[in-house]
Amino acid sequence: MTFEQWTRAVLARVETALEHYLPTAETAPATLHEAMRYAVLGGGKRVRPLLCHAAGELTGASAESLDAAAAALEMIHVYSLVHDDMPCMDDDALRRGKPTVHVKYDEPTALLVGDALQSQAFVALTSDVLAPAQQAALVRELALASGSIGMAGGQAIDLASVGLKLTREQLETMHRLKTGALLRAAVRMGALAGAGSNDAPDANAMRSLDAYAAAVGLAFQVVDDILDVTTDSATLGKTAGKDAKDGKPTYVSIIGLDASRALAAQLRSDAHAALAPFGDRAQRLAELADLVVNRVS
Amino acid sequence: MTFEQWTRAVLARVETALEHYLPTAETAPATLHEAMRYAVLGGGKRVRPLLCHAAGELTGASAESLDAAAAALEMIHVYSLVHDDMPCMDDDALRRGKPTVHVKYDEPTALLVGDALQSQAFVALTSDVLAPAQQAALVRELALASGSIGMAGGQAIDLASVGLKLTREQLETMHRLKTGALLRAAVRMGALAGAGSNDAPDANAMRSLDAYAAAVGLAFQVVDDILDVTTDSATLGKTAGKDAKDGKPTYVSIIGLDASRALAAQLRSDAHAALAPFGDRAQRLAELADLVVNRVS
Repeated sequence: MTFEQWTRAVLARVETALEHYLPTAETAPATLHEAMRYAVLGGGKRVRPLLCHAAGELTGASAESLDAAAAALEMIHVYSLVHDDMPCMDDDALRRGKPTVHVKYDEPTALLVGDALQSQAFVALTSDVLAPAQQAALVRELALASGSIGMAGGQAIDLASVGLKLTREQLETMHRLKTGALLRAAVRMGALAGAGSNDAPDANAMRSLDAYAAAVGLAFQVVDDILDVTTDSATLGKTAGKDAKDGKPTYVSIIGLDASRALAAQLRSDAHAALAPFGDRAQRLAELADLVVNRVS
Repeated sequence: MTFEQWTRAVLARVETALEHYLPTAETAPATLHEAMRYAVLGGGKRVRPLLCHAAGELTGASAESLDAAAAALEMIHVYSLVHDDMPCMDDDALRRGKPTVHVKYDEPTALLVGDALQSQAFVALTSDVLAPAQQAALVRELALASGSIGMAGGQAIDLASVGLKLTREQLETMHRLKTGALLRAAVRMGALAGAGSNDAPDANAMRSLDAYAAAVGLAFQVVDDILDVTTDSATLGKTAGKDAKDGKPTYVSIIGLDASRALAAQLRSDAHAALAPFGDRAQRLAELADLVVNRVS
């Protein structure tokens, strides 16, 4: 199977899983459920679900358990986008090529969509396709990665650093929390879903996967910063040039465009190197590192 | 031990547990953690933690497991208050006798405090004072009770009903989700924390506890509506008379003050009746039903 075929197959699974783990649009309260589905379905690159499935295939996890984990990861990611786009945060009108939730619906609905998607992620993770001990382990990974010492904490640092001149180290710390924590959780949750299988990861394997995830997570953000200044809004599906306009520190603003490109290439090499112990079995993860760095939107 | 002594002892435990399960104010990002602690610590009636401990004592749960469950419940409750108080929702400046989080800090901080408290609740529930299978069961209870078919869904119905004339049945449906779901989860989670003990609840016991929780949950809201028109802001610790001003349907506006008082008394009787199978062992739950109905703030 080529990488394109694999990606297409996983994305189809993920869409089906998200359909399954979200309440239907007819379930009361219908407007809230319709808005949750509007925010989640039919859009996005699904990078976290892809990483989760690739890591899980490496460790012998069942496809059904990875569907639940991938759906939970994407729900957390989308809730963060919905809240980040609100007027009191980034005040953005375009996301995944569509009007943002507070524009399409209203602010209170956007707030509740984000809140309810976070809850729904933990509902998905406690479905019985995962053994109870795995459910508990995955919930803990996701909750820590989402919260105040993970994604929400990175968001707080991001807000506090508007208009400030961060050092490269401070910028990296912010992104390690804001984007890196959930990308790392995607890899770790995929791997932990394989607990009990013949290919279940040992402590060394988890360390290698952590190193891979750290490199890919940072590369993702460096490339985001590059695309923000080199690509138009139509291609991105969100407002381009927004970080510069908002006075947000980025890799491009701190180390320049050429050095940012060189850094992205280096991080891709680092990601590949971290996968060496797995040999060919980590092919999909290696290809995903390439995808993250080579993407054009 | 008198009820007052029991309550005082549990409240002290709960405060210690919340201190323990929240990151310290020195943990980076410090402002976010300081604001989370401001929102959660040193205030509130802690009704959900009290219900959780009382149900757990009935079913042989360890005090440590109840601390984790109680902390998680209170974090979810406080996150909902912080988000509800935001300008795009109820726009309230006073909560638990203090300025609300968006007034004391700012709107983005309030949004992130709520988001991060929800994550932190699931971190608390997956601590190892609970067995993994219990962690998973309690996470599922709490996630379902918090999300779009629970608390957040009730909030959505509440927002959609401003200025409308609801029937008593529609009002009850809204409150069963908005307030009732989490109060019911408090009772159920306490009981489920006793899984494996000699007093672990069977299906019949869970049904009795559900009936108790349904009555107490509705009574809580009826009394809230009564207090909103009969008590001043200083006593309530939140803005009095706000529902009427905002055009929100309440029990008082739909059935009147006297019928609301009679309903609260009836629901207290229903709660007591539901506890009959447990005899004296359910004394604390019975006393809590009295507390909910007799409270003056």
